[in-house]
Amino acid sequence: MHYTARAHTNIALLKYWGKVDEAIITPTTTSISLTLNEFYTDTTVWFDKTLASDQLVLDGETISGTAAQKVSRFLNIVRDMAGFNDKAYIISTNNVPTAAGLASSASAFAALAGAASKAAGLDLSVTELSRLARHGSGSATRSIFGGFANWVPGDDRTSFATPIFEKVDWPIQLMTVIINDQPKKVGSRLGMQHAKNTAPFYKVWVKLANSQVADMISAIQQHDLVKLGELAEANALQMHAMNATSVPPFNYLTDKSWQVIMIAQELRNQGIPVYATMDAGPNVKLISRPEDTSIIKKALTDVVTSSQIIIASPGPGIKVTSGDKI
Amino acid sequence: MHYTARAHTNIALLKYWGKVDEAIITPTTTSISLTLNEFYTDTTVWFDKTLASDQLVLDGETISGTAAQKVSRFLNIVRDMAGFNDKAYIISTNNVPTAAGLASSASAFAALAGAASKAAGLDLSVTELSRLARHGSGSATRSIFGGFANWVPGDDRTSFATPIFEKVDWPIQLMTVIINDQPKKVGSRLGMQHAKNTAPFYKVWVKLANSQVADMISAIQQHDLVKLGELAEANALQMHAMNATSVPPFNYLTDKSWQVIMIAQELRNQGIPVYATMDAGPNVKLISRPEDTSIIKKALTDVVTSSQIIIASPGPGIKVTSGDKI
Repeated sequence: MHYTARAHTNIALLKYWGKVDEAIITPTTTSISLTLNEFYTDTTVWFDKTLASDQLVLDGETISGTAAQKVSRFLNIVRDMAGFNDKAYIISTNNVPTAAGLASSASAFAALAGAASKAAGLDLSVTELSRLARHGSGSATRSIFGGFANWVPGDDRTSFATPIFEKVDWPIQLMTVIINDQPKKVGSRLGMQHAKNTAPFYKVWVKLANSQVADMISAIQQHDLVKLGELAEANALQMHAMNATSVPPFNYLTDKSWQVIMIAQELRNQGIPVYATMDAGPNVKLISRPEDTSIIKKALTDVVTSSQIIIASPGPGIKVTSGDKI
Repeated sequence: MHYTARAHTNIALLKYWGKVDEAIITPTTTSISLTLNEFYTDTTVWFDKTLASDQLVLDGETISGTAAQKVSRFLNIVRDMAGFNDKAYIISTNNVPTAAGLASSASAFAALAGAASKAAGLDLSVTELSRLARHGSGSATRSIFGGFANWVPGDDRTSFATPIFEKVDWPIQLMTVIINDQPKKVGSRLGMQHAKNTAPFYKVWVKLANSQVADMISAIQQHDLVKLGELAEANALQMHAMNATSVPPFNYLTDKSWQVIMIAQELRNQGIPVYATMDAGPNVKLISRPEDTSIIKKALTDVVTSSQIIIASPGPGIKVTSGDKI
């Protein structure tokens, strides 16, 4: 039997940045995310006794090497849970623009967790799926759920995401401003590890980040875009600042990133609620109301062209179906 | 009687960034500096009973407004100490390139303290001069001394600088890399105040900075350029990182600043001891050995022209003479 899952990627409003346990991917802080409608991965999985090894086809290309090994290691966990050792076909299509610096690994491992577990005959709850997806990629943990989700630290058993508010019925969107003039030199996995190991500000960042959780949840529950935006922007800036205290230092934000951050600030001074967040790269994601799109785009014209702005809205949780169509 | 003082500016190796008391300028952290030979201010002062107000001539121009008021307020302290109320002539010449982002206020208020106190008939010790200079500008406190100096927090009476090592007899120099493509938007005085009041990382920065003092003094005493450089670069990066967590955030470092920081890192990987420090602006100051000048200049050719690099060496403490020539 083959199963197909669609999972959407997410943007962290409170960031995941650093692991307590590198092997099983448990985080140092609680992270909170918004799942995005426009960006998703479709993955079809079936197990086949006659296969000698797992076969991975990603965006139409047969994949070997590190990426394939990572998928096989993940499938080993599923096989262990199901109690068999058959190899699998995995056909995956990403609908996440890589240039945007949005984590496609989040939707990829969430979709893989959904499709593979079903194909292996497991009938996991969303909590069990979230816990499983975590082994592939930390941010995948949250992509099991739609809308706003909350991933807590803990041990292998207790660290998973829960939904805060899955159906977002208030006007909020994410505008990705693609700056990305160079490929980033320090990947997320390495960046967070280096920061945790060497940044003297790391501990205070963790403490601060965890202290922002209750307020962020309350802002989401109260549909308070201003409070949500303030917390998200502060948390992101604090993460980037902390990185720059690593030894040796590293820095993802460029002059253009700062220009966008300052434009958001100026727009707020004019009464437009728009807030910046940045992941491991120079691109800035602006949290805003859909009704302010044109005024924000206009304010950005000195920094980027309109084709460098991608708009996304809140998206749904994982969906798994039998067969290869969602 | 008129007196002329020459005081040199200094670069902070551990930064002064934030006041406990805004009025009398007492700092939140101990700062440590190197006085620079090439950059200084010459100031001549004499008091004249017949004057209706203080007369300030700066670099050949008669000055009124805020700058003149600041000088008069400073002279009021000197007049209070001397017990008279005569107005003064102040003729001052700056030999600090403003584009370099080196604090001319440090040499300016140190020279003013020296010349004005002598002209007022006071015979202050260097400690008393350092305490007096502090009222004009925090960094002026350290410019009373040559070589390496140390300014400690405290109250009006106990907060002044002391020399660590006035005659620097080991090879160390400061290369200022002028990036400075735009005037800075947030001045030092405002920047440090805003950071202290709003940056959630401020307290940890203070704690960290104060914990670096003993090691910095020991590095200076042991002529350990590597240790000194590591501490100076870390302290500066931590200050800039902390600033970026202010609400709203501000940031002095540009892409070019980071390029220079990374070039220093690459040079170190090649065995050249060169370390970066940055004040309230984009310019990067490189601490290095004189013998490595050409290799460092060569490594910087992609970022700046050779005319954008200014080299300074350790300088002497304040010198006061009667008459208008040093």
